[in-house]
Amino acid sequence: MSDYQPPLRDMEFLFNEVFAIPDVWSRIPALAEHVDADTAKAILEQAGKVIAEVVAPLNRSGDEQGCRWEAGRVITPDGFAQAYQRYAEDGWVGVAGSLEYGGMGMPKVIGAQVEEMLNAANLSFGLYPMLTAGACLSLLNHASEALKQQYLPAMYEGRWTGSMCLTEPHAGTDLGLIRTRAEAQADGSYRISGTKIFITGGEQDLTENIIHLVLAKLPDAPAGAKGISLFLVPKVMVEADGSLGAANAVSCGSIEHKMGIKASATCVMNFDGATGYLVGDLNKGLNAMFTMMNYERLGVGIQGLALGERSYQNAIEYARERLQSRAPTGPVAAGQIADPIVVHPDVRRMLLTMKALNEGGRAFSTYVALQLDLAKYSDDADERSRADAQVALLTPVAKAFLTDMGLETTVHGQQIFGGHGYIREWGQEQLIRDCRITQIYEGTNGIQAMDLLGRKLVADGGRAYSVLSSQIKAFASALERSRVEFSAPLLAAVTNLDELTAWVLDRAQGNPQEIGAAAVEYLHVFGYTLYAYMWAQMADVALKQPEQAEFYTRKLGTARFYFARLLPRIHSLTATIKAGSASLYLLDAEQL
Amino acid sequence: MSDYQPPLRDMEFLFNEVFAIPDVWSRIPALAEHVDADTAKAILEQAGKVIAEVVAPLNRSGDEQGCRWEAGRVITPDGFAQAYQRYAEDGWVGVAGSLEYGGMGMPKVIGAQVEEMLNAANLSFGLYPMLTAGACLSLLNHASEALKQQYLPAMYEGRWTGSMCLTEPHAGTDLGLIRTRAEAQADGSYRISGTKIFITGGEQDLTENIIHLVLAKLPDAPAGAKGISLFLVPKVMVEADGSLGAANAVSCGSIEHKMGIKASATCVMNFDGATGYLVGDLNKGLNAMFTMMNYERLGVGIQGLALGERSYQNAIEYARERLQSRAPTGPVAAGQIADPIVVHPDVRRMLLTMKALNEGGRAFSTYVALQLDLAKYSDDADERSRADAQVALLTPVAKAFLTDMGLETTVHGQQIFGGHGYIREWGQEQLIRDCRITQIYEGTNGIQAMDLLGRKLVADGGRAYSVLSSQIKAFASALERSRVEFSAPLLAAVTNLDELTAWVLDRAQGNPQEIGAAAVEYLHVFGYTLYAYMWAQMADVALKQPEQAEFYTRKLGTARFYFARLLPRIHSLTATIKAGSASLYLLDAEQL
Repeated sequence: MSDYQPPLRDMEFLFNEVFAIPDVWSRIPALAEHVDADTAKAILEQAGKVIAEVVAPLNRSGDEQGCRWEAGRVITPDGFAQAYQRYAEDGWVGVAGSLEYGGMGMPKVIGAQVEEMLNAANLSFGLYPMLTAGACLSLLNHASEALKQQYLPAMYEGRWTGSMCLTEPHAGTDLGLIRTRAEAQADGSYRISGTKIFITGGEQDLTENIIHLVLAKLPDAPAGAKGISLFLVPKVMVEADGSLGAANAVSCGSIEHKMGIKASATCVMNFDGATGYLVGDLNKGLNAMFTMMNYERLGVGIQGLALGERSYQNAIEYARERLQSRAPTGPVAAGQIADPIVVHPDVRRMLLTMKALNEGGRAFSTYVALQLDLAKYSDDADERSRADAQVALLTPVAKAFLTDMGLETTVHGQQIFGGHGYIREWGQEQLIRDCRITQIYEGTNGIQAMDLLGRKLVADGGRAYSVLSSQIKAFASALERSRVEFSAPLLAAVTNLDELTAWVLDRAQGNPQEIGAAAVEYLHVFGYTLYAYMWAQMADVALKQPEQAEFYTRKLGTARFYFARLLPRIHSLTATIKAGSASLYLLDAEQL
Repeated sequence: MSDYQPPLRDMEFLFNEVFAIPDVWSRIPALAEHVDADTAKAILEQAGKVIAEVVAPLNRSGDEQGCRWEAGRVITPDGFAQAYQRYAEDGWVGVAGSLEYGGMGMPKVIGAQVEEMLNAANLSFGLYPMLTAGACLSLLNHASEALKQQYLPAMYEGRWTGSMCLTEPHAGTDLGLIRTRAEAQADGSYRISGTKIFITGGEQDLTENIIHLVLAKLPDAPAGAKGISLFLVPKVMVEADGSLGAANAVSCGSIEHKMGIKASATCVMNFDGATGYLVGDLNKGLNAMFTMMNYERLGVGIQGLALGERSYQNAIEYARERLQSRAPTGPVAAGQIADPIVVHPDVRRMLLTMKALNEGGRAFSTYVALQLDLAKYSDDADERSRADAQVALLTPVAKAFLTDMGLETTVHGQQIFGGHGYIREWGQEQLIRDCRITQIYEGTNGIQAMDLLGRKLVADGGRAYSVLSSQIKAFASALERSRVEFSAPLLAAVTNLDELTAWVLDRAQGNPQEIGAAAVEYLHVFGYTLYAYMWAQMADVALKQPEQAEFYTRKLGTARFYFARLLPRIHSLTATIKAGSASLYLLDAEQL
């Protein structure tokens, strides 16, 4: 079990050299005043320090102990409560929260890096503040001023956490089916009744209160998704002066026993006529949820990246130390019983795949976070609208591709350890178990792919995509001739994606099954092409350095590996998509 | 948790229709007498029955309980001892064991199906008889007649189990580094001292004795792999009359806590001057191990297939029952709240991928098992030698490709369950955890790929490959014109593999790193091409049926899916290989 090292240098590289983010901040009034390169650096260092020192050491023990449920109470693993208190007191729960209600007011690009570090250190732990931040975002955008004033400050401070109560036993992906009821009361509040499952942090022993955001339907609501409303339901009632009152009629019926994220309490929540307050408009609950979806989904994507980064840090250390067999070209460490396994080509293949996917993923997630910031903070309406369209387009890719790559990287990271990787003590296998939920929750990766192709491309007629594609082609075309090793394959990849997009859009008109048949592979072609865009930008920066300092040599070498050995994956995915949906429907359900 | 259904119909199809195995048996004297189609059918039905009824129900509980270690003793989960006794009493431990020493004498093609069923039912449980069968094979081929008579009957009966003690803390892949010592004693026995790790079934409470096969070195042995000898070390000494005597100086120091196969005891074994008996020649221990390697490695491959099959059986049932959203072409189950998820194209994509990889894998593993039988039992020396070469070539593909596909299929099988797949109760996540070890043990899949390319192709000059390739091309060319949908892509795939093989062999001459750089992707191209061969054969049989009974319709539909959507994976793998090793060595170990 090695220690976690926050990848601060790489984050600085992306901020200051690749995306020139401080320049963006300086021209946006809403950000210029309180964030610049130095602030960002100081914040990431400080957050990284508490995360590495306080949170990371609880990852393995938290997995071994897990959460326990006792008569409605949830007991988190040893040390979680103290670590959470420290993390909250330092202000990190509200790092991207609104200044107006006591948050730190940092842009998402900074919040995204804190999320990466926190999730790399301890995904189970990270979910408690992450769900809180998501709930805050919904409240900030949709709740009444009174609710915001009453709830947001304590949530940003981390004194209260938040939960998102969507899923029911028979309604996961298809939220239109939910049965939880809300009945209007004379005082303007609602009585909420129903059962929710898979509620992350629905109950815990870290804080004195938990603020549940609950999807429910009024008795006379329209059927399906158009009749869903969102309610704030506190675990403990909050008095007018902000003090805590009586317990609300909310209880945790049990917790799930899961493959991973064992220190995160996944709760069955019972609402038995609990008092709730409407958030946003009646029957517009899904809209209120979607506001925070883009943030949450990027956040889940970042979890996949984070687990891959942690796995890589462990794997590279092991690969340098573990002695086994000799290099194919002859002994490298002649004085030792064998060579370190890092000399073997197949071990390098796995390490470089991890490194290229992690650093490409960090660039991509930072890029999407920047678009979220532009969409929210820019004072130029056109820029806001353009960024908003990009966020909509890129969010499903970020959620699904980063987590799919997270599975691949954590599996490589375990494989490098050989048999030792299978033993719990080394920590590598936990990262895989934790990673699998990131491909499932917050909308499965199949659903993300359908969202990308069905909603973000077909429904939009490909407009947001055209903007992105033109931007990549303009970048590639403007690269110096000496960069042809990057510009040529990048142009080819984006041209392939253009053609494929047109092909799928065309086919989908004749047969709606074509969208779902192509979706997952299409999202992967999209992801690899975006990573190529990221790697070409990073390589360009590295090549511009007057001297090839170590950091830039590494970037260039990894970029070259990406183009040589990972980008070619788009060929087979493209061929598979073009095989169409026919072969999926040769057999009926009983013949499968 | 659904029940396990032995896929007997599919096995029968492979035996009687695809490979005409009973015809092979009838022309081989060593088999003709005691096995025919009816025997095979009866055996598979009976084994399937006890496996489904007695072994499968212990899979989940075994995972939850795991093995416990108490003061040197290992306690297996509740029910394991009784189930093992039943399994052994029915004779299944010795199903493929030598008739001469009390085994059932069945060919490997039958043993392979029993292994698939057993591992699908309960991989942890299956490891105890599997290690025993492996140990028996080494003894049968290399031990003295006296040792065979003393040990084999009780092992075939399942009264004693076997273990393989190879790995040491600093020596896994690189067995040349082992330090366990063997000192010759005056009575012809040896005193064995050292520590072995990762010993499956090194200790357990199922049987009265355990027969360890231990790799060790004599004090004056040559350095490295050429100085390794193999010893039989019983847990309890066996008297001349076969009764048990005193305890030997062997002890279990602890067991590992692992990602999966929790009901299989993975032991640290201490040999403190234990009495052992030489098996085979001095310093030829690795040879004695390699005899059983081909059997064991095929067996591990089958484990990957087995887990995928179990996952599929659960997933298809869930996909037919779980109601969520509507089909893209409009409601299918209009009277229900939503359609069963099997209507969604992306769910079908996952299900058909599982089905095509499982059934293709079963055909392939049966094919390899048949080659093992020809190599062992044929009365034609040429046929034996040809089959032997095919076994050598195909074994690493079987081990690695079947288990890599096992990971993919078990992940799909979990994904189809959505959030429920992440909950332990449903059993889908266990299959992934169990599967990961199959990609690691018995030589990691990277090592298998090196074996294929380095030993089975480069060292052999591609001779065994040419035989296989010609056979596939002859088959494809001889297919009727109406089969062009299968023959054309199969020919293209094998031609691609021919070219790729020549390309890699050529490049390897100039740079030994090219082998390792290409190995894993090459093995995958090989695997997909072989599955195409299997699917083309199965499709051909299905198309020959006078009427398209349900079973054949299913086969054809799945074959078409395989060719349309899975075989194209070879394109990217081929492109990646042709990028060569250069990008793996741009950075040195400290720069990674």
